[in-house]
Amino acid sequence: MSAATNFDGLEVGYDIPALPGMDEADIQTPCLILDLDALETNIKKMGDYVRAHNMRLRVHCKMHKSVDIAKLQQTLGGAVGVCCQKVSEAEVFARGGITDILITNEVTDPLKIDRLARMPKLGARILCCVDDPENVAALSAAAVKHGTQIEALVEIDCGANRCGVETAQEVVEIAQLIDAAEGLKFAGIQAYQGAMQHIDLYDDRRAAVDSAVTQVTEAVDALRAHGLECDIVGGGGTGSYQFESESGVYNELQCGSYAFMDADYGRILDKSGHRIDYGEWRNALFILTSVMSHTKVDQAVVDAGLKVQSLDSGLPIIFGRNDVEYLNCSDEHGEVADPRGALKINDKLRLVPGHCDPTCNLHDWYVGVRKGKVESLWPVSARGKAF
Amino acid sequence: MSAATNFDGLEVGYDIPALPGMDEADIQTPCLILDLDALETNIKKMGDYVRAHNMRLRVHCKMHKSVDIAKLQQTLGGAVGVCCQKVSEAEVFARGGITDILITNEVTDPLKIDRLARMPKLGARILCCVDDPENVAALSAAAVKHGTQIEALVEIDCGANRCGVETAQEVVEIAQLIDAAEGLKFAGIQAYQGAMQHIDLYDDRRAAVDSAVTQVTEAVDALRAHGLECDIVGGGGTGSYQFESESGVYNELQCGSYAFMDADYGRILDKSGHRIDYGEWRNALFILTSVMSHTKVDQAVVDAGLKVQSLDSGLPIIFGRNDVEYLNCSDEHGEVADPRGALKINDKLRLVPGHCDPTCNLHDWYVGVRKGKVESLWPVSARGKAF
Repeated sequence: MSAATNFDGLEVGYDIPALPGMDEADIQTPCLILDLDALETNIKKMGDYVRAHNMRLRVHCKMHKSVDIAKLQQTLGGAVGVCCQKVSEAEVFARGGITDILITNEVTDPLKIDRLARMPKLGARILCCVDDPENVAALSAAAVKHGTQIEALVEIDCGANRCGVETAQEVVEIAQLIDAAEGLKFAGIQAYQGAMQHIDLYDDRRAAVDSAVTQVTEAVDALRAHGLECDIVGGGGTGSYQFESESGVYNELQCGSYAFMDADYGRILDKSGHRIDYGEWRNALFILTSVMSHTKVDQAVVDAGLKVQSLDSGLPIIFGRNDVEYLNCSDEHGEVADPRGALKINDKLRLVPGHCDPTCNLHDWYVGVRKGKVESLWPVSARGKAF
Repeated sequence: MSAATNFDGLEVGYDIPALPGMDEADIQTPCLILDLDALETNIKKMGDYVRAHNMRLRVHCKMHKSVDIAKLQQTLGGAVGVCCQKVSEAEVFARGGITDILITNEVTDPLKIDRLARMPKLGARILCCVDDPENVAALSAAAVKHGTQIEALVEIDCGANRCGVETAQEVVEIAQLIDAAEGLKFAGIQAYQGAMQHIDLYDDRRAAVDSAVTQVTEAVDALRAHGLECDIVGGGGTGSYQFESESGVYNELQCGSYAFMDADYGRILDKSGHRIDYGEWRNALFILTSVMSHTKVDQAVVDAGLKVQSLDSGLPIIFGRNDVEYLNCSDEHGEVADPRGALKINDKLRLVPGHCDPTCNLHDWYVGVRKGKVESLWPVSARGKAF
């Protein structure tokens, strides 16, 4: 064990959890690690899938918030562009060289609209969603002011009960406003079935998506009847992409979690009734944690608590171990049942987080590992970009 | 509304949510705001309390992770030093000029021990906790290597069922090892009653703390019988500090949340049966959020979801409003019941987060507001310092 080493001025254990070339055993915990073999396998597999199904893949970067991984998804996995959720997040990807960015969300604040309208000057095609007729004029004025073009999708609420309009008539009304507005271009429909991604059974997910497909098809037909064609009909996530691909109406998938997987997606089942983290997608993301106290014979305390993971979708699973179980979580600690006394202080465990998106957003770095060595250190480029 | 403005090279809406001097209405959301009047009132009040009760206050900075607020707690609130939970976090406070820092946690990883032993060179008194006899030799070797002194407390598990030893005999054994080890100084006992902070009723909290006091008193007496005096007998939080103050055995309080308050602490009751956020402590911390969609007549969607707050202790409360209610949370959105249609797009709301510690750790900045104007912009100095 050496003292802290410099890497572009960053110190291991203060700024960064590891250095490329380091043994995996020397990584400072708690931190996020990526199994690079698993990550690359997942990314290639989705690329193969979209090619075989004649779909486009616009990967959702709200999940990993990493410019490096987005570029890997483009070069290795055939992604045509990315999705973001926030303007400040999109700016990170635009500044990082991503040239086709859809904000799958409404942008209504005046300063955010101004920033959105300036973003094409960074060299990127910029798209956002609209669900309010009054929003169209504000977007148009900002695009005109900056001499840029914003492409806009009408968002349909197809079951999430959140943003978006519901009827084909409302879609057409907003689309016509967009089509008529200077500086804007009508680009199609956003219809993400968020609520059904985590339904456990494949047939239940299919039923939920079927009603969304009907709703989207009606909207596309109504738009066409009014002379408006959809360049993009976008939606789909890791729990549903097969249904959107077979729908005949969607043409862009917006999957994110497939690249990393998490414990919650691991609980849903594929067509054959297998867990999708065993069959389709490998666990690539882990929280690496260390035992730091073991005063009870049957319980270890690890250094990964609430500040390095989000518990909204349940506790993490300890990867590759049946003899120990993560039982409870406080701000900085995890309590691990160790009935056989298998763990000792400074032992390391890999946790599969319950929900990858808000967990990644807590961290500054991804440590890429392969064959027991640290290979890469990637920033979580858009961490905290919530504006 | 102006376009983004520079502030030491930082852009509003990209790096920072606001600038000093700005109207509160122009703050970019979602972000953390501090009611500076409420914050200062809370800090002064606790300072008055500890002086009146002849206690020392070592504020817990794991809650806010802010050097600026720690210094305010010293100058305005009589704090004698700070607590941290992690080595990398303590380094932020040491580098920021705090000179008396207790890590209320075990430090067992070799690199972390090395960093801990170097930290006194930053000009700070450094203390940590020990609950494992084998840890003593490693701490001692590092202190000797760096020619520094580490002060060590023995941690007692007085009900949290986490780290720490339980019997007076174990305390004495570890204390003697520390006392005999070169480079180390035995400094006393760490006994934080974490589990009882959030018990709603005052008398129930008192009962829980009574057994801890008995346990700590036995340990202190046993140490004294072996010639070991405790400089520090530390513990106590916002839900229990009155009990430790009256115990006759504790001499340092480690409160954190009193400065900000959160919805979960707001649910506990004081001696008179009043909620402590109505009587003792004012809500100083809020998540400022904006309505960004309102397609349903009775529901608004706001821009504060899972990525700007931790839900481990429940949903946020909308401050000062009885007509709307935060009902559900996804990664980037909150669903707000708006039965009377009181909200419109771009309206702002103040949310009292369920649990302040992990919520603050998601953000980069505190926007300090007073009388409708932004007065300060403080970094969350140790955000993400989990190593």
